[in-house]
Amino acid sequence: MIHLHLIGIGTGNPDHLTRAAIRTINAVDLILLPRKGDAKSDLLDLRHSICGAALASPVRMAEFDMPVRRQDGDYTQAVDDWHDAIAAIWAEQIAVHLPDGGRVALLVWGDPSLYDSTLRIADRLRTAGVDLTVRVEPGITSIQALTAAHAIPLNALAEPVTITTGRRLRREGWPLGVHTIVVMLDSGCAFEVLDPAGITIWWGAYLGMSQEALVHGPLADSAPQIAARRAELRARHGWIMDVYLMRKERADAC
Amino acid sequence: MIHLHLIGIGTGNPDHLTRAAIRTINAVDLILLPRKGDAKSDLLDLRHSICGAALASPVRMAEFDMPVRRQDGDYTQAVDDWHDAIAAIWAEQIAVHLPDGGRVALLVWGDPSLYDSTLRIADRLRTAGVDLTVRVEPGITSIQALTAAHAIPLNALAEPVTITTGRRLRREGWPLGVHTIVVMLDSGCAFEVLDPAGITIWWGAYLGMSQEALVHGPLADSAPQIAARRAELRARHGWIMDVYLMRKERADAC
Repeated sequence: MIHLHLIGIGTGNPDHLTRAAIRTINAVDLILLPRKGDAKSDLLDLRHSICGAALASPVRMAEFDMPVRRQDGDYTQAVDDWHDAIAAIWAEQIAVHLPDGGRVALLVWGDPSLYDSTLRIADRLRTAGVDLTVRVEPGITSIQALTAAHAIPLNALAEPVTITTGRRLRREGWPLGVHTIVVMLDSGCAFEVLDPAGITIWWGAYLGMSQEALVHGPLADSAPQIAARRAELRARHGWIMDVYLMRKERADAC
Repeated sequence: MIHLHLIGIGTGNPDHLTRAAIRTINAVDLILLPRKGDAKSDLLDLRHSICGAALASPVRMAEFDMPVRRQDGDYTQAVDDWHDAIAAIWAEQIAVHLPDGGRVALLVWGDPSLYDSTLRIADRLRTAGVDLTVRVEPGITSIQALTAAHAIPLNALAEPVTITTGRRLRREGWPLGVHTIVVMLDSGCAFEVLDPAGITIWWGAYLGMSQEALVHGPLADSAPQIAARRAELRARHGWIMDVYLMRKERADAC
């Protein structure tokens, strides 16, 4: 029997770790750590340093190379194939390192519930016949790190919030019926498709890390500023993780 | 100068505390603890026990009686007056206990960004002339405790999510354009206004606490079950905090 623990570790600051996450990391038999290629090698280093901050004594760690997602063709099919490939690697690593079963941890940026595929990949392990329990430890998301860094509420008073993706914002524009949106997984600057009138943006990158960068203001002024900053930071670090919240004045929203 | 720290403490389980939250609780000169009346006295006890779990050595604590929000008249005006009254009490407590300034902590259920008014009340302190800095420590929200307890993702793959309130769901029905919604601040069972066809619900109460209760299934079957369970638990404990996530089959959603 394999007990899989999906542990939210926050956005890169070891101080985001919860007591439950720290306890679980210390209780497992194996920690699986993905390698994502050279440009993101400091993310692997960061996972190692988070483990270092959390572990009272050493736990076996196994690094594995993440397969690369096909960039052409149908997006959903490409994601589906990619998840299959990741599940196969997990199963292989687990079979090699824990032939008699045991407790395995996967460290997930942010929280395992939010725009993360670890839960879905774990389901494929089950389907592939691995005898499995899955437990989740919540972690601080980039949305929470963003609102904390700017010291702002997520929602306007008693108002709803929509969390969406850059891809969808680009395709569909501002979602119906909400004054506040959070945009995640934006590989570019999808806010550029919007008419900026009446919109305020709060943007953050590398939240909680030493490189943290914040911009906020009217979208009209901030959009070019963020685009330039983002390009410069991405070039400097080789990668970027960012997220932003936008609010529309009430009259414009619905 | 007053340095106000708004600390997200999760949903009642001391293991939700982050390292940053624990460090901050230990670094302040004063912790302000609200008393909300007899029925919720175990919530005050819970804050005390969370402090007990977090504090390496004693910190001064000041309990204050929360004013009661007017239940009649205009909702927004009632909330506005209530926030003014709370800000006045904070200012008074701070003046009494820290006449020369210092660091003050407020412990916030969940995360200070999400359906919580502490940030807005802090702004009123500023307006009232208190010389103030505000810092936020993010905490595990009830949404994260819910998805972790059910081991489910918040969003469907690459799909948006809307977070809304019971009041709004009751008034406006299912929000446009989303397949997944999370409902917070529902004082009743607002899901009863929906046509349950094609909707699945994941419900949780007292998440992370010893009383934790979970129900999930097709809304048609689960709605009466949750309503009965909720009434029974509320009667037994004198209060209830719950949250739920619902997903609609794609064909019905937009």
